[in-house]
Amino acid sequence: MRVLILGGDGYLGWPTAMHMSLRGHEVCVVDNYLRRKISRETSSEPLLKAPDLEERASIFNELTGYYIKVVIADCSIYEDLSALIKEWQPDTVIHYAEQPSAPYSMFGLHEARLTFKNNLDSTFNVIWAIKEHAPDCHLIKLGTMGEYGTPNIDIEEGWIDIQHNGRSEKFLYPRQAGSLYHTTKVLDTDLIWFYVRVYGLRVTDLMQGPVYGLSTNEANIDDRLLPFFHYDDIFGTVVNRFLIQAIVGIPLTVYGEGGQTRGYINIKDTVQCVDLAMSKPAESGELRIMNQFTEQFTVNELANRVSRVGNKIGLNVQIQSLKNPRKEAEEHYYNAKHSGLMELGLEPHYMTDEVIEGMLRKLLNYKSSIDVNKILPRVTW
Amino acid sequence: MRVLILGGDGYLGWPTAMHMSLRGHEVCVVDNYLRRKISRETSSEPLLKAPDLEERASIFNELTGYYIKVVIADCSIYEDLSALIKEWQPDTVIHYAEQPSAPYSMFGLHEARLTFKNNLDSTFNVIWAIKEHAPDCHLIKLGTMGEYGTPNIDIEEGWIDIQHNGRSEKFLYPRQAGSLYHTTKVLDTDLIWFYVRVYGLRVTDLMQGPVYGLSTNEANIDDRLLPFFHYDDIFGTVVNRFLIQAIVGIPLTVYGEGGQTRGYINIKDTVQCVDLAMSKPAESGELRIMNQFTEQFTVNELANRVSRVGNKIGLNVQIQSLKNPRKEAEEHYYNAKHSGLMELGLEPHYMTDEVIEGMLRKLLNYKSSIDVNKILPRVTW
Repeated sequence: MRVLILGGDGYLGWPTAMHMSLRGHEVCVVDNYLRRKISRETSSEPLLKAPDLEERASIFNELTGYYIKVVIADCSIYEDLSALIKEWQPDTVIHYAEQPSAPYSMFGLHEARLTFKNNLDSTFNVIWAIKEHAPDCHLIKLGTMGEYGTPNIDIEEGWIDIQHNGRSEKFLYPRQAGSLYHTTKVLDTDLIWFYVRVYGLRVTDLMQGPVYGLSTNEANIDDRLLPFFHYDDIFGTVVNRFLIQAIVGIPLTVYGEGGQTRGYINIKDTVQCVDLAMSKPAESGELRIMNQFTEQFTVNELANRVSRVGNKIGLNVQIQSLKNPRKEAEEHYYNAKHSGLMELGLEPHYMTDEVIEGMLRKLLNYKSSIDVNKILPRVTW
Repeated sequence: MRVLILGGDGYLGWPTAMHMSLRGHEVCVVDNYLRRKISRETSSEPLLKAPDLEERASIFNELTGYYIKVVIADCSIYEDLSALIKEWQPDTVIHYAEQPSAPYSMFGLHEARLTFKNNLDSTFNVIWAIKEHAPDCHLIKLGTMGEYGTPNIDIEEGWIDIQHNGRSEKFLYPRQAGSLYHTTKVLDTDLIWFYVRVYGLRVTDLMQGPVYGLSTNEANIDDRLLPFFHYDDIFGTVVNRFLIQAIVGIPLTVYGEGGQTRGYINIKDTVQCVDLAMSKPAESGELRIMNQFTEQFTVNELANRVSRVGNKIGLNVQIQSLKNPRKEAEEHYYNAKHSGLMELGLEPHYMTDEVIEGMLRKLLNYKSSIDVNKILPRVTW
């Protein structure tokens, strides 16, 4: 298949590109280095300096013989994205081209506006470019479990049947997110669902929980192929932050009561899920939505796991509650369904003690690269 | 009160401005003449050529002694809107500054992009300008009943209590609209609700049904103060189109089966509703949503009414079904609640035979200005 990956330089984009290439697909990645730019501007650089996208593709080619086409362009500029889709004629577009940091999106007007415009414009553009130039192409869109927020009822996979005054209707599951970033994804969903209905696009929306992990099978080939590993308050997801804190001896920072429950996924399973979705595309006129995580934890449970494993291997891991920098429920009901990807054949990598130990041991090799000033929250809302 | 009206040149904006001014409020209107520009570009000019906004305000001042401040600016440019809100310090902002034509938004890429950017950027900007410079200001946002679409269950006023697997939660009522224009309003709602929760803004969202009517009490002072009256397929709402068709002897164009049901409102009541919402503002941190219409009809019922009244006064009115140019349900359940504005004191002007006759008789005076080439649908989706 011909695969176009938008945001192909990112934490998920780059491992996905390598995976698809090694599976024999023709892969093109596009990125405008927005993540690298914001990382520099906010002192949120990843643990290891990654070669730029063209260098990554070149190293990958040297080591494997496989070729990934690289285009440096901005998906929020219609003419650029449109020309690429017209020329490349992808069978699948995987859309990761969004500013994904919740804290960044809440920092101030500039950051909110950048997030809002980048994310909405990229989504609008990919919809229209596909409609105009590759209408049968399957769009795989990364959504987020954060779109649902933390409702007091079970979270279904994208849709809900509502019984009301003796009648019933199926709707998109109501979404109510906790940051502007997550809210842009809610808007994406509304927009995509409209155009799926009207123009018969075929779309899979993967509602992903927080991702963790340093590497994938493909990235293990060479350290220069590792995805970005962020452990800062801007781009670092909670598990990755805890792992680094355990290593440098900063207490694991639990926000507030620590009862926040989310569904987590190993980065290896992200790649696997996208592959499964690509192998069995949505129908024309279908918005297929699947919740992309493998297990649910509270933040306290995560902290306890990392602490237990860290202490077992000789680290001195403490846990400390911080005043919550975010407006969010700290104790809440949470029960999210996630059977769709299992039914497609997902074989989960769960967060066992062995997996946590493996990540800690690998990160210990890079201890000297850790900047402890990046760890505590700098944005509140 | 100090009132800022965004989109103050429009069908609803201008009558609202006059009304608020005559009620003793300090009124500032802002507009970028986008509607006039699109009207020219699409041959959708209104029945009567309206003086420009500064002339309108000047005529209004001569005739009444009341002063309306006019600013020609684009609300989709943050710096301009922000400076205005900072300087004017409104108690209430009434946000009509959106591209409101469903057919225009469905015409092609250019029109879709203009609608998407204009509407979303204006809403984003007004939220941020209020947050930064007038955080206690009450935002009155014009939504649309079209956000709800035509679900198979009762339409509530903005919110719904969902029972699911033995638990319950209150959500924004699920929205699923029939055009990109209406979808931009869905996105507006999601965005506003997020910022209301996080920053404690006070917002009233008026979910308005199709508006009809030529004039309001204030506009009756002088024909030069009349709001735009569109009868074309781009900006003309269905009742206004039927009235004009009755006058020129073109059969009333019912799209498809004609079972499409909507909630309608007289333009006099739009002004009244906005006044009521302004007098009793939403609380800080509240998104108050009210459905703004007074009575429900099918398109067939509307056609029959206009036809009956037209024939009674000597016109020869026929009704003709056209192949539906839109993707929409032509027979569907529809039961929308609308008690909120009644509880605030709305005294409706219903669409009686006398009201229809009055509109027809007034329009007969302008029969020679009607361009019959503007009436049939030019956009399909």
